Amino acid sequence: MTGSTPGREKKITVMKFGGATLATPELMKGVARRIVDVRNTGQDVVVVVSAPGDMTDNLIAKAQAIAEFPDEREMDMLLATGEQQSIALMAIALKSLNCDAISFTGPQVGIVTDDAHCKARIVKMGSDKILKALRLGKVVIVAGFQGETEEEEITTLGRGGSDLTAVALAADLTAVVCEFYKDVDGVYTADPRVVPTASRLLNISYDEMLEMASLGAKVLYNRSVEFAKKSGVVLHVRSAVRPEPGTLIMEEVEQMEGVMVSAVTHTKQEAKLTILWVPDKPGIAATIFGRLADEDLNIDVIVQDISEEGTTNISFTIRQKDLQRAKKIVETLVKEIGAKGYQADEKIGKVSVVGVGMRSHSGVAAAMFKALSERGINIVMISTSEIKISCIVEENRVEEAVQAIHEKFKLSNLTS
Amino acid sequence: MTGSTPGREKKITVMKFGGATLATPELMKGVARRIVDVRNTGQDVVVVVSAPGDMTDNLIAKAQAIAEFPDEREMDMLLATGEQQSIALMAIALKSLNCDAISFTGPQVGIVTDDAHCKARIVKMGSDKILKALRLGKVVIVAGFQGETEEEEITTLGRGGSDLTAVALAADLTAVVCEFYKDVDGVYTADPRVVPTASRLLNISYDEMLEMASLGAKVLYNRSVEFAKKSGVVLHVRSAVRPEPGTLIMEEVEQMEGVMVSAVTHTKQEAKLTILWVPDKPGIAATIFGRLADEDLNIDVIVQDISEEGTTNISFTIRQKDLQRAKKIVETLVKEIGAKGYQADEKIGKVSVVGVGMRSHSGVAAAMFKALSERGINIVMISTSEIKISCIVEENRVEEAVQAIHEKFKLSNLTS
Repeated sequence: MTGSTPGREKKITVMKFGGATLATPELMKGVARRIVDVRNTGQDVVVVVSAPGDMTDNLIAKAQAIAEFPDEREMDMLLATGEQQSIALMAIALKSLNCDAISFTGPQVGIVTDDAHCKARIVKMGSDKILKALRLGKVVIVAGFQGETEEEEITTLGRGGSDLTAVALAADLTAVVCEFYKDVDGVYTADPRVVPTASRLLNISYDEMLEMASLGAKVLYNRSVEFAKKSGVVLHVRSAVRPEPGTLIMEEVEQMEGVMVSAVTHTKQEAKLTILWVPDKPGIAATIFGRLADEDLNIDVIVQDISEEGTTNISFTIRQKDLQRAKKIVETLVKEIGAKGYQADEKIGKVSVVGVGMRSHSGVAAAMFKALSERGINIVMISTSEIKISCIVEENRVEEAVQAIHEKFKLSNLTS
Repeated sequence: MTGSTPGREKKITVMKFGGATLATPELMKGVARRIVDVRNTGQDVVVVVSAPGDMTDNLIAKAQAIAEFPDEREMDMLLATGEQQSIALMAIALKSLNCDAISFTGPQVGIVTDDAHCKARIVKMGSDKILKALRLGKVVIVAGFQGETEEEEITTLGRGGSDLTAVALAADLTAVVCEFYKDVDGVYTADPRVVPTASRLLNISYDEMLEMASLGAKVLYNRSVEFAKKSGVVLHVRSAVRPEPGTLIMEEVEQMEGVMVSAVTHTKQEAKLTILWVPDKPGIAATIFGRLADEDLNIDVIVQDISEEGTTNISFTIRQKDLQRAKKIVETLVKEIGAKGYQADEKIGKVSVVGVGMRSHSGVAAAMFKALSERGINIVMISTSEIKISCIVEENRVEEAVQAIHEKFKLSNLTS
């Protein structure tokens, strides 16, 4: 679906800038020059901005200084001002560079959402006002993160909301690309703090990016990537300060399948609980995980294997900070369902390999396990999906595991 | 026109809070308690708020750090966020006191303005949304200072804009009173810093308030008082921290006419220029003051009297800081019109008495002049209107002049 709008000569690029890149007037002026550069290549430009710096956090703190649980409708009214300040200041910055520009709030461009305040979902986009301003030769700046209901109530889209605004606008305007200007310059084969020789990926598929995000690589929120996948918007994660291109996130292309593994990701501060000798009858797993979900416990990996005498062991991982709460629930469950007991492994982490190439290459799992065994790293649990393999290991071996796997798949220094 | 809306049982009070009264979460909570108190007397309450603290000034500084002359449409987009933050935080504060409340921006309640950005004029008010929320038992909080054009462009109303919003809402809702909660507790017979025994006025007419404002008493902007006069809204200027009533500004009542003089006001840092021996022919005054207006010089008092041989002397006062600019223009004018020359009096001030009682009492001017002559204070110029008399005196005698006149009319200690 991405391409040029019928009847339009110019291609549209959507440029999204996060709050850290807008924290001061000086930074804003730098961003404005960046926008002018792109515009001068002959494209139409639509800019989406977040609230400047840590303004959103400051506003939340202010509200909480007044009330412990501030009303959500009023929080939306409050927080929407952050992005509104950014769009106005950015338009002022562009005009001072003799670049004609105009700012619009989410409601002004017709971004309609449901009425779930603080976590609203977009139900309708509007592009008339934007296209009209583009035709007049203006750069259009739209406030991210916000919309309004059919009843003209101001709403916000929750975490990663500004990214979502950018992707939704790019889809609606059939932009050629939606560019994310960030404090990282792309998506890497591993966290460069753990693997200094990690390579920046030139491109990666939506599915890989989605797996990576849930595996600990915090580049874009999954909501935005899912929206982009659904509507075919090409995403470009790149540096806000350096001019070089970053990583494209797009439909799978053949070249991607030539690579066995795209990246190694990791998480830490997890814990594992195993319920021993669970009677093997229908509905037991539903009981266990239903109860844990009722208590808002976030379960990650689940593994069930056969134990003795018609019983099974059921293991799952959670965040370390939830362990004490989870233990209490499990203690009760053990009695209720007639299991033998439970074990806790308090400090574990997860190492994963991601790559669409796994679909066509065999031996990825074997190579991964070999890399770990060569370093004497014990695998506690294994979980797989079509394009990823995760191994749970002891927390203090996580970095070493990432390095070993990264080396095994020869991911270092692939790009400069 | 003030009173209760047909079909409404409850009376509506509009409460306006300025930025200084909203500067911190603690102050906001205090304001919220104040609102609850009024509401608990059984009235419907509509609250109008300014931007918190010095936020508007900070935003202007931020914009000017980006561009020397920021675009006015974008300044409106930027500045409107200040009041939007106040309404949200105030609604949160009220709800935390178990007082149901809802906030609306100017555009949301349908305040429509012309498109003169940064100094827009209200062309239409909307009260449907407000009345509906009041019927649901809510306190309604409306952002002052802002509106939108018919094309949904955000506008702001310029200096004193939030006061104007409050008065316009009070008129549209036929509120019983529009209350201004301020850091002063009312309108005084003289500036209490000059006359420590000055009395707080219980009430004063619109016309007196208008004269006082232009004579240096900075309590409310004239735009708001004029609007209130036109629509018959009773204004109440009172303390944001003390519970006692302040000063009512309202239609002239008989009782007001019983008082010869309501207040003594003063200004300083003015200067006087006199053009000598101006040929007495039609159009000369227009030439002189047209030229001064072209240069954006603010002229205050103008006096013309007869000089010699068919010529006149024309004197006027301006602000001291404009004197050098004015002198240059006058020098050129003297040559052009064939006057004899000019004189400058660099440090003068103005003392005025205001009171609708002047209409029915004679001898006010005489008593004022006598008060000054008893202290040996020389009168440099005199200017009168129907309800005020102003005397220009030397700047260093202004305080003494105010005290002498205040004493002469026995204005001290009239109220506690």
